[in-house]
Amino acid sequence: MTQAYTLSQITAELGGEWRGEDIAVTAVRPLDQAQAGHIGFLANPKYKTEVAASSAGAVIVSAKAADEFSGRNLIIVPDPYLYFAKVARLFSPIEKARAGIHPTAVVESTAKVPASCEIGAHAYIGANTVLGENCRILAGAVVEHDCTLGDETVIHPNAVIYYGCTLGKRVEIHSGAVIGADGFGLAFTGSSWFKIPQTGGVTLGDDVEIGSNTNIDRGAMSDTLVGPGTKIDNQVQIGHNCKIGAHTVIAAKTGISGSVTVGSYCIIGGGVGTVGHIEIADKTNIGGGTCITHSIKESGQHIASLYPMQTHKEWARNAVYIRHLSEMNKRIKALETQLGGASDGQDE
Amino acid sequence: MTQAYTLSQITAELGGEWRGEDIAVTAVRPLDQAQAGHIGFLANPKYKTEVAASSAGAVIVSAKAADEFSGRNLIIVPDPYLYFAKVARLFSPIEKARAGIHPTAVVESTAKVPASCEIGAHAYIGANTVLGENCRILAGAVVEHDCTLGDETVIHPNAVIYYGCTLGKRVEIHSGAVIGADGFGLAFTGSSWFKIPQTGGVTLGDDVEIGSNTNIDRGAMSDTLVGPGTKIDNQVQIGHNCKIGAHTVIAAKTGISGSVTVGSYCIIGGGVGTVGHIEIADKTNIGGGTCITHSIKESGQHIASLYPMQTHKEWARNAVYIRHLSEMNKRIKALETQLGGASDGQDE
Amino acid sequence: MTQAYTLSQITAELGGEWRGEDIAVTAVRPLDQAQAGHIGFLANPKYKTEVAASSAGAVIVSAKAADEFSGRNLIIVPDPYLYFAKVARLFSPIEKARAGIHPTAVVESTAKVPASCEIGAHAYIGANTVLGENCRILAGAVVEHDCTLGDETVIHPNAVIYYGCTLGKRVEIHSGAVIGADGFGLAFTGSSWFKIPQTGGVTLGDDVEIGSNTNIDRGAMSDTLVGPGTKIDNQVQIGHNCKIGAHTVIAAKTGISGSVTVGSYCIIGGGVGTVGHIEIADKTNIGGGTCITHSIKESGQHIASLYPMQTHKEWARNAVYIRHLSEMNKRIKALETQLGGASDGQDE
Repeated sequence: MTQAYTLSQITAELGGEWRGEDIAVTAVRPLDQAQAGHIGFLANPKYKTEVAASSAGAVIVSAKAADEFSGRNLIIVPDPYLYFAKVARLFSPIEKARAGIHPTAVVESTAKVPASCEIGAHAYIGANTVLGENCRILAGAVVEHDCTLGDETVIHPNAVIYYGCTLGKRVEIHSGAVIGADGFGLAFTGSSWFKIPQTGGVTLGDDVEIGSNTNIDRGAMSDTLVGPGTKIDNQVQIGHNCKIGAHTVIAAKTGISGSVTVGSYCIIGGGVGTVGHIEIADKTNIGGGTCITHSIKESGQHIASLYPMQTHKEWARNAVYIRHLSEMNKRIKALETQLGGASDGQDE
Repeated sequence: MTQAYTLSQITAELGGEWRGEDIAVTAVRPLDQAQAGHIGFLANPKYKTEVAASSAGAVIVSAKAADEFSGRNLIIVPDPYLYFAKVARLFSPIEKARAGIHPTAVVESTAKVPASCEIGAHAYIGANTVLGENCRILAGAVVEHDCTLGDETVIHPNAVIYYGCTLGKRVEIHSGAVIGADGFGLAFTGSSWFKIPQTGGVTLGDDVEIGSNTNIDRGAMSDTLVGPGTKIDNQVQIGHNCKIGAHTVIAAKTGISGSVTVGSYCIIGGGVGTVGHIEIADKTNIGGGTCITHSIKESGQHIASLYPMQTHKEWARNAVYIRHLSEMNKRIKALETQLGGASDGQDE
Repeated sequence: MTQAYTLSQITAELGGEWRGEDIAVTAVRPLDQAQAGHIGFLANPKYKTEVAASSAGAVIVSAKAADEFSGRNLIIVPDPYLYFAKVARLFSPIEKARAGIHPTAVVESTAKVPASCEIGAHAYIGANTVLGENCRILAGAVVEHDCTLGDETVIHPNAVIYYGCTLGKRVEIHSGAVIGADGFGLAFTGSSWFKIPQTGGVTLGDDVEIGSNTNIDRGAMSDTLVGPGTKIDNQVQIGHNCKIGAHTVIAAKTGISGSVTVGSYCIIGGGVGTVGHIEIADKTNIGGGTCITHSIKESGQHIASLYPMQTHKEWARNAVYIRHLSEMNKRIKALETQLGGASDGQDE
């Protein structure tokens, strides 16, 4: 059942140059796990020694590294990591829709579901919702009324798309994700909280992927937007009226507060938090665990602010002084004054 | 299909005074997006200039601001933000239950479901569960056995209420939220972890709203409680046996450990964490990203402890010293001693 | 309906020695809530005074504490907390499968579901999936194709197990948890992100418990692993290709990045984050809110790095200096030089 590809077939399909023997391989594997029928890859030159030790039948390498491995069967490409991903996809093609509506699925009569779509067991498609060709709405997934989904979009089991949302083509929504639940908007009456109706929707561009148990809240009066090609990991929270750019990557557990604008080609680590109503420029790189407290206006910056890890003993000794930093600074200043030295540049 | 309201109709319904021309509007919009048929609002005087620039047909303003906009159609009210929320609700009324049980829903024979309730496709209502009038249990939602839900409570698609939970009136539970899963209680046997049965339930007061993918764990021996009017955002975790007061607001991604008591009218930011078994007084305001490490006994305090955001370069330069604060303090003290100066008030 | 047990019946079942009158009790309760028909427990000697004040009919105590309560009905055991858990389980036995497949459930024809299993309303069991004896797949839960579940494993309502996952015996997966969604692997093409196919699965050992809305991602080329007896709380994220050891406990909201190896018998607090590709030794104890930035190679360490909680006023005064620690250190050094004193041990 496993499809085998020779090196010449792989390069015919994906480019690159092969060398050595035109062997057939059945899977791509890390160098330390690869066997004779597998192809490995050397993405980072620092793991060169693993190539020698590997039983891989063939190895994907850069031109620079190729000469060192003249005895091996090789595929030589500019970017071995990207090529590895493409070879892996060759062995594991994107699953196609198995056209048909499961008898237990419920599709409201005004919904438009092309015959090419796969609608799984117990799935629900609401009134006036329009699906593109070859969509897959898997078991138990719910797409409420008045949504639009582009071609080849996949909703995994038990994910939920609230009413009035627009998803582009080839969007993938993982299980437990919720798109378009109400944003968190409240006005205080003096004695209780009055809910601000969240009448906007959510618009996701083409090729967006949304991880499991991630939330993209609907906007208050206009849509929350996620640009094309943006990839969002699990358990991420995107507040109402955020505008996330194109081809941005957001790792797990990050929370973006309401009305934040994030640029394109940003890389945002895991567990990041932000205040609301700020802008983050294109190509910003934010390290995991950082709290973004104000706008980042210059593009291409690298932001990081992890509180450093310590043993409990170190922490117990040091943490208390966090609350005395201002005093420590004053005491240094007093000593400097006493010694006649001027403090320079202490404040920005 | 869009309902239009004149300014006089709006004020007749919601109070306030209108001025100018009694135009009809069809929606409320932010000032920068509002068109002639829309009503805008000025909640914060610092955005005054936006009123002049706005195409809004009418604007909701405070009495103080009204005189400056004598040429505009106005509604004058004490709290424009709250009024905006009410106008938005007028245009977008809370959806009513469409009475009836979907043929694919499963309602156990001992459950009590009034005819006024809406039970969606593939919803499940367990044995002995009792629903109030006009409840909406939407597609794929599960309410296990022995639960009680008050009138007009809404369970969004695929949310889950475990057995034995009690929800008040007008409670709203968003998709992916789980109410009443087991609290995390374990006793070590010396070689493995023995699970402590979680035999309490969860009780949510009237008008509680629970965001998507939020968890309220059931209590170990008595119920976990959330007071009336409390609003909880997405991806919040409330541990077993917590007691959350009334009209408290908890933003996304906050985690409240087990057996924590939170007062009423607290405002808790996003990404907050707490240790267990502590008390947080009424009206405490906790900034986003704060770790609450001990009880807050005095009410009305503002707590904040975000680790400050830095560029990666700044961080790399500074963070290492966090682990040397105690030494830095000692060195300052040594210098002070050498210079004959006494340190004052360095420790609290 | 409530089962009553006498002290002699309890000790016959669970060990320990009883003293006083052989009364019957119907529940275990905390000392401050226990009534005459209840049994309380004294797990921590510092709550001794609660025993005197308690109305409990009987109390579980250690041998050391027993003599002080000679007038009470007692069960004397080495570990009152563990014993309490076992008594609670006696009163609240693990629910057994109600054998049968609900008529609305969908079980693919190639799946193997023993007659002893309980398959709830709207549950879905995919092709070639094999269930052990007495499994419970509750309402709306989805187990995709090619999975294997051990005996007595329970999948709570609306939880999802992606294809090709292996769960041991007595595994419990709470609602909203997602096992085996795609790991977050991407290769940059220069203009967009190419998804790395996630072709591994997830393997969970026997007696693993997974909390609500927790994610265990499938591996990229080999399985993500969780060892036997490990207990994971709600809203935890385990990245692809992690290897979590046996009998480890992970509290709510913790995120473990991809390819992290966690040892056995670790205790990981809530809201912890880690970088990827590191190792955490056996029996490591990690305090809540800690960011683990590098491997922990020595077993049994206690790690903690919570940024300390402050009032907003304190924070506003002190936090700014975090960004000036390097300068403060230089200024201290300059003062020391000026005074002729040598700094010692300031750097590790």
